Amino acid sequence: MKNALAYADAHRSNFVDELKTLLRIPSVSTDPAFAGEVQRTADYLADHMKALGMQRAEAIDTGGHPIVLAEHFVDPALPTVLVYGHYDVQPPDPLDLWHSPPFEPVERDGLLYARGACDDKGQLFMHIKAFEAFMKTTGQPPVNLKFILEGEEECGSKHLAGFISDHADELRADIVVISDTALFAPGVPSITYGLRGLAYVEVSLTGPNRDLHSGTYGGAIDNPINALARLIAGLHDQDHRITIDGFYDDVIPLTSDERATMRALPFNDEEWAADVGVSHTRTEAGFSALEGSCARPTLDCNGIWGGYTGEGAKTVLPSKAHAKISMRLVPDQTPEDITNKIRAYFEANTPCTMKLDFKPMHGGHGVLVDTHSPAMEAAAEALVGTYGKRPFFTRIGGSIPVVADFKRILGLDSVLMGFGLDSDAIHSPNEHFGIDRFHEGIASIIRFMTLYGS
Amino acid sequence: MKNALAYADAHRSNFVDELKTLLRIPSVSTDPAFAGEVQRTADYLADHMKALGMQRAEAIDTGGHPIVLAEHFVDPALPTVLVYGHYDVQPPDPLDLWHSPPFEPVERDGLLYARGACDDKGQLFMHIKAFEAFMKTTGQPPVNLKFILEGEEECGSKHLAGFISDHADELRADIVVISDTALFAPGVPSITYGLRGLAYVEVSLTGPNRDLHSGTYGGAIDNPINALARLIAGLHDQDHRITIDGFYDDVIPLTSDERATMRALPFNDEEWAADVGVSHTRTEAGFSALEGSCARPTLDCNGIWGGYTGEGAKTVLPSKAHAKISMRLVPDQTPEDITNKIRAYFEANTPCTMKLDFKPMHGGHGVLVDTHSPAMEAAAEALVGTYGKRPFFTRIGGSIPVVADFKRILGLDSVLMGFGLDSDAIHSPNEHFGIDRFHEGIASIIRFMTLYGS
Repeated sequence: MKNALAYADAHRSNFVDELKTLLRIPSVSTDPAFAGEVQRTADYLADHMKALGMQRAEAIDTGGHPIVLAEHFVDPALPTVLVYGHYDVQPPDPLDLWHSPPFEPVERDGLLYARGACDDKGQLFMHIKAFEAFMKTTGQPPVNLKFILEGEEECGSKHLAGFISDHADELRADIVVISDTALFAPGVPSITYGLRGLAYVEVSLTGPNRDLHSGTYGGAIDNPINALARLIAGLHDQDHRITIDGFYDDVIPLTSDERATMRALPFNDEEWAADVGVSHTRTEAGFSALEGSCARPTLDCNGIWGGYTGEGAKTVLPSKAHAKISMRLVPDQTPEDITNKIRAYFEANTPCTMKLDFKPMHGGHGVLVDTHSPAMEAAAEALVGTYGKRPFFTRIGGSIPVVADFKRILGLDSVLMGFGLDSDAIHSPNEHFGIDRFHEGIASIIRFMTLYGS
Repeated sequence: MKNALAYADAHRSNFVDELKTLLRIPSVSTDPAFAGEVQRTADYLADHMKALGMQRAEAIDTGGHPIVLAEHFVDPALPTVLVYGHYDVQPPDPLDLWHSPPFEPVERDGLLYARGACDDKGQLFMHIKAFEAFMKTTGQPPVNLKFILEGEEECGSKHLAGFISDHADELRADIVVISDTALFAPGVPSITYGLRGLAYVEVSLTGPNRDLHSGTYGGAIDNPINALARLIAGLHDQDHRITIDGFYDDVIPLTSDERATMRALPFNDEEWAADVGVSHTRTEAGFSALEGSCARPTLDCNGIWGGYTGEGAKTVLPSKAHAKISMRLVPDQTPEDITNKIRAYFEANTPCTMKLDFKPMHGGHGVLVDTHSPAMEAAAEALVGTYGKRPFFTRIGGSIPVVADFKRILGLDSVLMGFGLDSDAIHSPNEHFGIDRFHEGIASIIRFMTLYGS
């Protein structure tokens, strides 16, 4: 390990230069015009890993953008680590807000600016450089190593789950490691052990069969907007708890340890609220804002529309009203069950004056990983080695569907060890990655592999 | 009177032919391309009335479309009737749904088809023909007669109230008579004595200062759509009564006579609901559908919008949500007072997580006319003479702002004696007017003038 760390330290500028080469290829996956560049990125990564001595590395056609699969087998007695990352990037628009061109990486004040610098080329490249550090010193990594690098993460991961199923044998491993998340704060290492799932539905109410004159009919024909508002309002009680029958049945309660950890995190409610321009948070009674935003299930209207929405006044009693509603889920809620339960709510409470159209849109499972597993312990120790302090185990409010896919299809837990920061402007102009954090990531991964392998 | 009625009967086909001439001029007031036609219609009416012996008739410039003012003075001992009507028409679109061209009037099955046949050229022309019947027989009408014929009713009556104020002296009268409404049903004469007013507002809530990721913030940052839904839902209670503080304070209760009249009307709840495709009406507890739609105040969302409303799913926690809300008012509610009261509701109930933007849009007063006045008695008797039965006195749920304007500016009540039918397709393709109803209207107006003048 010492040699590998020394090698990594000695090659800091080479590693950054190589990352710049990777960042120069505009692998924008949503835009078909860039399909060739996405392919070129996949080929570059496969070639680069082979050049470093990886036993197998190839860009495999998926019908969409290729998936890079790589493998380096050392010893059947060693555990196998499967690294997931994605080499595609968000479109760089709006271009005029970038201070330097998005695909011409530049260093400024210790930060490397480029589209993909953090999300996720910079972070996946740390794993390749850790592999290199072992190959150039001890001659082989301390674990069996596999890579699955996706090119469609930013456009819906259409082919990923199918690919994992189809290549289940080749992907067999003991743990998945993913670096696609952020530190809790600068210098505050964290490992994400919880992700929320999602159930997303669209609801439409039809009252009268056409838009009516509100003078002629108002007061006797029920209004679908008013009715939909009543239904949406009824989804929360005064304590901001969700009223859907059985909604909380399968929620694994936060443990007192988890709550203590959250209280210890450097998180300031008021600053967090002020940053998005609100004076107060609003959370389910009995839970902090951090708990509410990360570790409790939610229900949000994502969109609503109906009737006249143009300029001025039109006295219409509309025929229809619509809402998009999504719920963030936590284990062991399932999107199927929650979708059925909210459907039951709407079916039971839609007034007899309205016709209901209920459309499930999509869903995903939440994830909770055992923080006491050998892999998690190794990851925590590795971060202690790099940062001099034990990481916080954190839950995040969003979803990373691939984590649930690995669990569902391969039975594998994931270690989410990310080195980004919320301020890295991923998906925005002037995306960047701290060069120190890039090197901290490589050192942490070297330590993790060593600790997990022993 | 007998002579005038005989003259009208003898000239039935002449009257229809003359109406056709009037209907051939496409006086579409909303479309500037038709401004010349609107002017031509005004001039035609003024000339036609002068040719019939009207002492004064002129098309007066308003800055918009002209108003035709006419006057025939008989005797200071006689009451003065001011006839209001409008000679402009709705656009004829969609043209391809007309069975015959909208400005080429044709008779089919006793109906005269043309844009404006009923609304309102056909109905205002009845008053001119009644005047003619007196001029050609007794030599003068049995009342002093004034006309105010508007050319902007279908585009917002921008210049009408100002014109009435500016010409208050010339418009002095004892009663206004308007034929711009419908019979309650074929062969069921009715006089409208009540109109609802209106208060229309737009409400916007701002939560976070930008659209947020519902995974990262959902559960701790309040959602403006959910909050707006709660506010809208709170505007009605379980009995479908409006909860705004003091909302009903100034409502003049329905009298038992009024309620008995409404119960006697040939109105079938279920058919009325089925006609607009709903299985049940929904009315304030204790009131029938007819009472709710005509004689009680209401609150309807006319439009709502916020967040993501496109195809598919987007997990946004939106910054803003908006609604247009209107209330139909009944005397003695005023739009100013009710607007203040709903503003107070929103100010008191908007949660501390939201910023409220409250925008009054416009308003109008409701009207209730004394059904026992000499003019109303004369109108009722006139309809008995024509239909052989006493008319129902009815209230309608919509607004005719000019009625409130005449009351407010000139202190005049209006007699709303209309001969249309709800099935006349006004504002739609194939507008028509029953030729029998046209003649019934002329005869009824002849009777009314005679009775009111004596």
